[in-house]
Amino acid sequence: MTEVLEPFVTAARDGGADFAALPTPTTPAEWLERARLVRRILEVDAAERDAAGATPYDEVAVLKRSGLVTLLGPVAEGGGGQEWPLAYRVTREVAAGDGSIGQLLGYHYLWFWAARLVGTPEQIEAVETQATAEQWFFGGAVNPRDDDVVIHDEGDELVYHGKKSFSTGSNVSDVTVLEGVVSGTETHVFAIVPSKQEGIVYHDDWDNIGQRLTESGGVTIDGVRVPWAAAAGFRDKVYQPRVYNTLNVPVIQLVFVNFYLGIARGALDTAAEYTRTTTRPWLHGGQERATDEPYIVDGYGDLTAKLWAAEALADAVADEQQEIHRDPDALTEQARGEHEVRVAAVKAVATNVALAASNAIFELTGARATRASLGFDRFWRNVRTHSLHDPVAYKRREVGRFVLTGELPQPTWYS
Amino acid sequence: MTEVLEPFVTAARDGGADFAALPTPTTPAEWLERARLVRRILEVDAAERDAAGATPYDEVAVLKRSGLVTLLGPVAEGGGGQEWPLAYRVTREVAAGDGSIGQLLGYHYLWFWAARLVGTPEQIEAVETQATAEQWFFGGAVNPRDDDVVIHDEGDELVYHGKKSFSTGSNVSDVTVLEGVVSGTETHVFAIVPSKQEGIVYHDDWDNIGQRLTESGGVTIDGVRVPWAAAAGFRDKVYQPRVYNTLNVPVIQLVFVNFYLGIARGALDTAAEYTRTTTRPWLHGGQERATDEPYIVDGYGDLTAKLWAAEALADAVADEQQEIHRDPDALTEQARGEHEVRVAAVKAVATNVALAASNAIFELTGARATRASLGFDRFWRNVRTHSLHDPVAYKRREVGRFVLTGELPQPTWYS
Amino acid sequence: MTEVLEPFVTAARDGGADFAALPTPTTPAEWLERARLVRRILEVDAAERDAAGATPYDEVAVLKRSGLVTLLGPVAEGGGGQEWPLAYRVTREVAAGDGSIGQLLGYHYLWFWAARLVGTPEQIEAVETQATAEQWFFGGAVNPRDDDVVIHDEGDELVYHGKKSFSTGSNVSDVTVLEGVVSGTETHVFAIVPSKQEGIVYHDDWDNIGQRLTESGGVTIDGVRVPWAAAAGFRDKVYQPRVYNTLNVPVIQLVFVNFYLGIARGALDTAAEYTRTTTRPWLHGGQERATDEPYIVDGYGDLTAKLWAAEALADAVADEQQEIHRDPDALTEQARGEHEVRVAAVKAVATNVALAASNAIFELTGARATRASLGFDRFWRNVRTHSLHDPVAYKRREVGRFVLTGELPQPTWYS
Amino acid sequence: MTEVLEPFVTAARDGGADFAALPTPTTPAEWLERARLVRRILEVDAAERDAAGATPYDEVAVLKRSGLVTLLGPVAEGGGGQEWPLAYRVTREVAAGDGSIGQLLGYHYLWFWAARLVGTPEQIEAVETQATAEQWFFGGAVNPRDDDVVIHDEGDELVYHGKKSFSTGSNVSDVTVLEGVVSGTETHVFAIVPSKQEGIVYHDDWDNIGQRLTESGGVTIDGVRVPWAAAAGFRDKVYQPRVYNTLNVPVIQLVFVNFYLGIARGALDTAAEYTRTTTRPWLHGGQERATDEPYIVDGYGDLTAKLWAAEALADAVADEQQEIHRDPDALTEQARGEHEVRVAAVKAVATNVALAASNAIFELTGARATRASLGFDRFWRNVRTHSLHDPVAYKRREVGRFVLTGELPQPTWYS
Repeated sequence: MTEVLEPFVTAARDGGADFAALPTPTTPAEWLERARLVRRILEVDAAERDAAGATPYDEVAVLKRSGLVTLLGPVAEGGGGQEWPLAYRVTREVAAGDGSIGQLLGYHYLWFWAARLVGTPEQIEAVETQATAEQWFFGGAVNPRDDDVVIHDEGDELVYHGKKSFSTGSNVSDVTVLEGVVSGTETHVFAIVPSKQEGIVYHDDWDNIGQRLTESGGVTIDGVRVPWAAAAGFRDKVYQPRVYNTLNVPVIQLVFVNFYLGIARGALDTAAEYTRTTTRPWLHGGQERATDEPYIVDGYGDLTAKLWAAEALADAVADEQQEIHRDPDALTEQARGEHEVRVAAVKAVATNVALAASNAIFELTGARATRASLGFDRFWRNVRTHSLHDPVAYKRREVGRFVLTGELPQPTWYS
Repeated sequence: MTEVLEPFVTAARDGGADFAALPTPTTPAEWLERARLVRRILEVDAAERDAAGATPYDEVAVLKRSGLVTLLGPVAEGGGGQEWPLAYRVTREVAAGDGSIGQLLGYHYLWFWAARLVGTPEQIEAVETQATAEQWFFGGAVNPRDDDVVIHDEGDELVYHGKKSFSTGSNVSDVTVLEGVVSGTETHVFAIVPSKQEGIVYHDDWDNIGQRLTESGGVTIDGVRVPWAAAAGFRDKVYQPRVYNTLNVPVIQLVFVNFYLGIARGALDTAAEYTRTTTRPWLHGGQERATDEPYIVDGYGDLTAKLWAAEALADAVADEQQEIHRDPDALTEQARGEHEVRVAAVKAVATNVALAASNAIFELTGARATRASLGFDRFWRNVRTHSLHDPVAYKRREVGRFVLTGELPQPTWYS
Repeated sequence: MTEVLEPFVTAARDGGADFAALPTPTTPAEWLERARLVRRILEVDAAERDAAGATPYDEVAVLKRSGLVTLLGPVAEGGGGQEWPLAYRVTREVAAGDGSIGQLLGYHYLWFWAARLVGTPEQIEAVETQATAEQWFFGGAVNPRDDDVVIHDEGDELVYHGKKSFSTGSNVSDVTVLEGVVSGTETHVFAIVPSKQEGIVYHDDWDNIGQRLTESGGVTIDGVRVPWAAAAGFRDKVYQPRVYNTLNVPVIQLVFVNFYLGIARGALDTAAEYTRTTTRPWLHGGQERATDEPYIVDGYGDLTAKLWAAEALADAVADEQQEIHRDPDALTEQARGEHEVRVAAVKAVATNVALAASNAIFELTGARATRASLGFDRFWRNVRTHSLHDPVAYKRREVGRFVLTGELPQPTWYS
Repeated sequence: MTEVLEPFVTAARDGGADFAALPTPTTPAEWLERARLVRRILEVDAAERDAAGATPYDEVAVLKRSGLVTLLGPVAEGGGGQEWPLAYRVTREVAAGDGSIGQLLGYHYLWFWAARLVGTPEQIEAVETQATAEQWFFGGAVNPRDDDVVIHDEGDELVYHGKKSFSTGSNVSDVTVLEGVVSGTETHVFAIVPSKQEGIVYHDDWDNIGQRLTESGGVTIDGVRVPWAAAAGFRDKVYQPRVYNTLNVPVIQLVFVNFYLGIARGALDTAAEYTRTTTRPWLHGGQERATDEPYIVDGYGDLTAKLWAAEALADAVADEQQEIHRDPDALTEQARGEHEVRVAAVKAVATNVALAASNAIFELTGARATRASLGFDRFWRNVRTHSLHDPVAYKRREVGRFVLTGELPQPTWYS
């Protein structure tokens, strides 16, 4: 971190720094620089915050003040007007500073964009305008592995009741994306609702070994009311499906990929700094500096090469996806399936390298780097926890089947 | 755990169970059975105790009451009269229940046996008799990566002053093995001293990510007095070296190996129980039970095969070592060096499999197995922490050099 | 190779050396020494013989003259009177010199022992006596993946007709073990028949990338006649099954394991000799000798450690099997199944290390070691070819299922 | 291969097909399509040609007639007018059909481009014009691990004398790039000379296990005369160095990377076709088709994901390099060094995946795929042979050092 930035970073953590005093990013390169600044702010005390496990109100505030939350929003409303490939890279940078906050931001992008996924043109414009102008932070409560939330159609309004085991970020969000099925039908309805309301009770029960600040606890939905006009994608209570609607899985999986890669990068950078400054050469090894130990140099070389390959594939697949976003209605099932296979491949690769790097950094830093106060195990715990979201073996299966038989993965709401 | 044992195990944890009511083990097989019982006792609440990080007084008490602490002691004094190969396997079993306690027991065996390593025949007999009769639990304060503890020779007595960064188990031990160098000389002197005395101050500063119950914090040695008669291996203030004295590294490294293997076994067994009882098959995978998931079955098969291979090598090397213990004076530098190379090899293999298993169990148990209350990350944290004691890369180097050029590793006091 | 042995080795290859002039081995250690001598004899021109792919008459002659073919035969008839654990290790040694010849010898041991597997006590004695006295070399024609050979029961005689795709070693053998099913029944009958007879036509069509000297081509069985008295295990045309009869798979798979391990050892030893004598240090690396290159030392260390672990497991499992051989009638299905699981594990481990070593030796020897005349690729081609006999993935499945659910592998005639 | 193309492919191999009848490629996509056609032509009998090891006159003829040899040449002379990123991808495609021919083509591109690397503007224009118009195929004789070729300065002419161990492709080339050092100086001079001349004697001694058609045998240079005007980059016998001149290593290493990736792709595609059409499911596995075997599907998925990642990094690094080619004089040492580090990383990754894929395809195709006539081992032999050109461990070292200390690799003429 440059000396110029240091006071800024410290102040930003305390809520006092003035992002507005910095020039507003306009190009992707400038936005990436902004994301790097946020990374620096977050990593100052990432270990302590992980240990504390406190609700990340301040961190979300930094995301807002930095402008990252409205990266995808319209420029006219103060948004960045940027596209998914950049959102993925921003997610990666932020996750390098704090895996949990990277996940929260990536999920936020998903939900922010979900209006485009299923909404009508009017809904898309309305949501993006308001969300950008008011700097909404999005959470979601749609885990499809739970029983469905039930919706009662009361004529003008839909009323949601049910439970969700995991509701990442809702606790610290302004709005939450709800999903449920209309009672007695097969009709699923998404809607954006205020997160702070009586009808949503947060269980505050997320206590897992990693991604500890993601506030992924359960919620009870108890009578949340949504006007039919806000039912995403519905006109006169009828939904118009298209292939593009099923892009949720490729998008969220690429979000996963990018915060895994960010965590891996954070692990390697953090470890390298420690190796440079603190690690001692082995007492019987004949080297004067840890940075000359052949096994340490080899370890960083090997892991970096693998990480760069995974990053390159992630970027390439993001660019491929952007072609789809440019013309949603042109998307065919074949093109969608082939894209999902590419995403599945990068998921497998990114999971591998993130686990490998976060495990191996200890060999590259040495015994004293296991001090609890350093918290170097958080990288592994973070990857380990989220990488189980869905079995990576099934991602390899998707790729293998496609290569062998041309079979395309079927769209689902989950993975 | 059989139903018969369950109440026993529960009672044992509370200090109420009566090991004396069980038949005294006499054969290696019976001692292994005893070790398995201790494993069961320890694993009941291993996760909670790891989270609490409390000093393991009760656990050491179980080791004493079970008879395991005197496994190597003379039968006449109530000891088991057993040998190192069994001590290693007992260490492995106990570590399967609790990695920290396995380490404490293995280190205890090392220090108990250290009398034979450097002591005179009279010292050996005296120490083993008393230690067995009084059920001493041993700790040690000899980390050679620190500056030397300084000894002042006051004629009849030696007085130790200094600091050691790591003093595993001393806190919960009856006696501690001290090591220092006589001021103004190159003479190193080992001695066994009472752990509870004014001259030893425990810093209680062990706070690392793994092996959290090993009480491996630092100590200050401030005027610990040792009569010359207790200076291990000295007669008339002169030490008689022999090759066997340098067997400390092969022995302690094989202790390491065995508690790594125990932790790996504990990880796999704990995970398998969870997979059988709790893991759900993947919702799009087409399997009815998690135990039918091809990737899960493959994972357990692969890791078990690797673990069995590492165990087989550990057992074979232990048997090779026992040939050395049978005739200490016959040990040549060549034979010692070749043995150390074999130990280095199994260290490398055991480290690999323990890391692989403790990392991979999450893929075999699924997302909900990351709940903090299960504490499944403790296996990885335990292996990760201790496996950095000395760089495994240098173990591979020892083996590689020997294979290529016949070069033998030089004896050191550390690794 | 010592200077003393060199002329012997050269002469032995020419058929002129007199094994009888050496003291007859009596202990396992002496037999291993004998096997090492045979290894030396074979490895002198292993590359050339692999390239030529000629039928190994001379090599089988060496196996006979060295006494290895009758290792398991009764001492009274001039056999070694040894047991399976040694036979496996001898197979390993010989395979280190020449993978094909190691396979031929290992298969020979299987067929020699097959009398004990299925024969009546009288048959066992008769076969072992004659085979030892006459130094029979055994081949077999029983590949169960082909259609069954059909047997016509002509009253006193059985007449075999059919084809087998692979008939390892028959071409260079004295006797061949045939297997077929009696027409219209489910009765399988094994018998030992002379290999040179009109009823067996050798296709001489083995042309695969590895194990090129194993003469594993197909055969046509056209009217081979066997008296009912020679039908292995039959009394009055009725077969008496027992669990021990199903030990063929564990035994042959352990044969596989041991020649894989031998090939791996041969690869590493051959490469190490080249690295020591010929490999140049990297021109920009700063090392003076190839044996000082950190990556080369690390490579040998890593592979050797893994190989030792696999060898240790192979030896341990062989000893476990020997307990079964000591009391064939006591074998239970549970014990058999658990043993097969152990064999499956070592198969997986041995396959891995043999592939890894035979692939990696090139990185440890350098670019010029790819000269065709050195033939260093034969190790990989040999392992690669035979390790596909049955999918190693199914071995991992056997182990994984057992660990997870206690399921035992079902006995089959193949793998 | 489509039905339309089949007769064309067959005819092309016989020299009879008329590439000129096809539309001339103009875009990168069309050139890739052309490269794929050449791949199809080559792979028809790649196994047979590998076994025969015959000099690839016909194959080079196909490269010429297809237009690929002049891909980088000026459009005005009939060249493709394309850039390096496409040349790399074309190399990759061709190598997928035949690793040796891919290497020859990639090396050809290097030498074709070498005029730009070291030549004066006039030389660059002259060489590119003539080489394109006359469809020169380039070879080179510059292996820096040999002693230098000595040049005698005879005033107007330079005369080369010496030997080179490896001279890939010269045998089948029109022109050869020579390199030597002027006697008594440190001045290195590159020049393009006719390959067929008395002064170049081909040893025809390339007989290695892989890349068997690359004609990489040695040459003796015996009085090859070069006018000073043809000494690349010299004006009035003085050479003007710039950083761009040292780009030879990044470029040739990226050539390596791309034909390794091509070989890997060829291995996977060839194997997948065999799995689909020929591989049988395991007889005890319960699957009806080999393409349903979980371990086979998993294997293809895993390897494909890794290959895609390596390809993505190769493409990204090629694009980064193209930025350098766009403004050669702007290249700084820092930018050059960082680029070489990126190339080193993709070299490590590509080597890994190519070895992994070419080794693993056998597990995915089964035992009968080891038939020598299929020649499936050629992929591994090809990668194995060339990947030793320089130790990949040193590539990881370059990356590791840069990451740890910012150290840049020093430019050399070799790797």
